[in-house]
Amino acid sequence: MNGPEIDTLVRLLSKLPGLGPRSARRAALQLLKKKEATLLPLIDALSAAAEAIKTCQTCGNLDTRDPCSVCADDKRDRQLVCVVEDVADLWAIERTAGFKGVYHVLGGTLSALDGRGPQDLNLATLVERCAGGRVREVVLALNATVEGQTTAHYVADRLSSSGAEITRLAHGVPVGGELDYLDDGTLVAALRARRAV
Amino acid sequence: MNGPEIDTLVRLLSKLPGLGPRSARRAALQLLKKKEATLLPLIDALSAAAEAIKTCQTCGNLDTRDPCSVCADDKRDRQLVCVVEDVADLWAIERTAGFKGVYHVLGGTLSALDGRGPQDLNLATLVERCAGGRVREVVLALNATVEGQTTAHYVADRLSSSGAEITRLAHGVPVGGELDYLDDGTLVAALRARRAV
Repeated sequence: MNGPEIDTLVRLLSKLPGLGPRSARRAALQLLKKKEATLLPLIDALSAAAEAIKTCQTCGNLDTRDPCSVCADDKRDRQLVCVVEDVADLWAIERTAGFKGVYHVLGGTLSALDGRGPQDLNLATLVERCAGGRVREVVLALNATVEGQTTAHYVADRLSSSGAEITRLAHGVPVGGELDYLDDGTLVAALRARRAV
Repeated sequence: MNGPEIDTLVRLLSKLPGLGPRSARRAALQLLKKKEATLLPLIDALSAAAEAIKTCQTCGNLDTRDPCSVCADDKRDRQLVCVVEDVADLWAIERTAGFKGVYHVLGGTLSALDGRGPQDLNLATLVERCAGGRVREVVLALNATVEGQTTAHYVADRLSSSGAEITRLAHGVPVGGELDYLDDGTLVAALRARRAV
């Protein structure tokens, strides 16, 4: 019923995570109604980001510079490498400001079902980074899913000869979590990893 | 932690309806990760829409042409005008394909609280459209809220001398709705407006 330009816009917006067809139409309408205030600035921001975005050749982070701001930061401990599946995980850990090492983004997990093997991951550069004792500790911060843990085992195996200590995130009760609502696996893991007060 | 381009993009995306700060970050990340497949097409679609979008001078609809495709459609009954608050409402009614007249978008409701008076609505053109018996019926399809109904009363008042019949949408049980979950007001309205089977 509207021009093809509007239909195309709604279709592309509806592919964004968190937006369905209905909210994409609402979003498109808001953009079109406030063209000067929202639509044109968004075009500028998208264009600027498209222009500026780079993949860090060292760690795989997305940033406006290469090496990325984490890899370029002199205050970071380069002997401490945190391995994550995705850039989103890297950003999540960065937001906590609780990690002072550097990262390595695998770009996914191993998955026999989806046909993703080691050659599909950003793994060779990790092995190279860790070779020759240049890295003291590798933290495997992969998702606590079957695929994430399979990948963690594989990565640990590949790095076994590097001389780096391989660690993983602790399992346990989430901060603010109620025991009653926790799954059994997490409860058992939290019990096993109990610590002196 | 990232470049200002990414922060700006996340901030603008998070202003879209349906996207909060968290999902805006996810959306930005997806766009940046798949630059060729999603980011560049979205920029093109937004630019094309910004270029093409026009406000229909007759009814206030947003379309890529003026008069809009509804007003320009010869098969429409121009003596039947449906008054809506917002372009979104017009689109919603158009999607049903159940209305064969034309529209008039008020662009809001009267609101003493928010300081919106009759002069802030697209009302003068409606009065002009309906003057001299050129319109047979005006359907007031305003939201069933206090402000929508106040506005409906005001519009009906302004059009009383136009000679057009003024109608409003029926209140009643939503199709597929369960009586048990309906509010009392709707139930009473549905009972009062009961029809012979």
